[in-house]
Amino acid sequence: MNTIDCISNRHCYRGEYVVDEIPSRKDLTAIMEAGLSAPSGCNMQTTSLIAVDDRDIVKQIKSVIDPPIAQTAPAFICVLSQEIIAYRDKCYAVQDYAAAIENMLLTAVELGYQSCWYEGHITDKDRICDKIAKILNVPNEYNLVCILPIGKAKSEAKGPKKKDFKDRAWFNKFGE
Amino acid sequence: MNTIDCISNRHCYRGEYVVDEIPSRKDLTAIMEAGLSAPSGCNMQTTSLIAVDDRDIVKQIKSVIDPPIAQTAPAFICVLSQEIIAYRDKCYAVQDYAAAIENMLLTAVELGYQSCWYEGHITDKDRICDKIAKILNVPNEYNLVCILPIGKAKSEAKGPKKKDFKDRAWFNKFGE
Repeated sequence: MNTIDCISNRHCYRGEYVVDEIPSRKDLTAIMEAGLSAPSGCNMQTTSLIAVDDRDIVKQIKSVIDPPIAQTAPAFICVLSQEIIAYRDKCYAVQDYAAAIENMLLTAVELGYQSCWYEGHITDKDRICDKIAKILNVPNEYNLVCILPIGKAKSEAKGPKKKDFKDRAWFNKFGE
Repeated sequence: MNTIDCISNRHCYRGEYVVDEIPSRKDLTAIMEAGLSAPSGCNMQTTSLIAVDDRDIVKQIKSVIDPPIAQTAPAFICVLSQEIIAYRDKCYAVQDYAAAIENMLLTAVELGYQSCWYEGHITDKDRICDKIAKILNVPNEYNLVCILPIGKAKSEAKGPKKKDFKDRAWFNKFGE
């Protein structure tokens, strides 16, 4: 797929997945490689990834997600972030992992999968992220910041309603 | 270009641009549309954009970038961000603009341009970002967080050295 088509076809998918169709290691690797190809502030490479395709571990992850989401996902990619200072007091870890996630969402679509950026749901006060990190033996110096279900969609992915281009983008001066 | 190839071919370009070859409005619009197609936390759409292709305004922007960068760029896309709360005390504005920037960098490469994510350089203590915002009549409630030069490259874009896949990505358990 052309990159521009892929970008415009990508939407957060919150429908059901074909639970028994586990993505191949080749595809999961390609998605993770795309994530790691994202730029990072001062090339600090603060983002790391764990793909989960083991049925039992996928099940364990789902069991700690309450309220439940992505319960039919056959696999997940879990996004880890390290708060490494890039220079002086500046840390670009959030920018780094967000760019990595976008690359992975696009690559999932390119390979015929759907996904969704689940961040707020798991990093909220009840810290589902920490429970998932424990399942995956993630060391304390890494924050688990996001999970991406990866799978074949049962229904169509639809985008949310967005503001018009003219209300968010201009030429040469604000609002023009 | 296939999305996966585009992602692996994208590198931050810090070389010279063909200064007289100004990107078309059609291409700048396509790049901005890709940026606005990025997901945003709770669909708050906190990112806005200004493309600058007017020779005089491009010159004004370059004149306030000290130390100088992107001095041969024929155009810029300036990224604006609003710190809008998505829910409770959560704001995803950084994630939002980072995903938008990554989409724009990829689309620039897809259309035959090069670019580079300049954020730290302009948001540092000397606040070059505020000087650029003033040139573009940006209201106070928007932060100018990043500029992307857009142009035809004079030299080849090369990626930085990155860690091996096995040091940043695993299957099912951390480090495995």
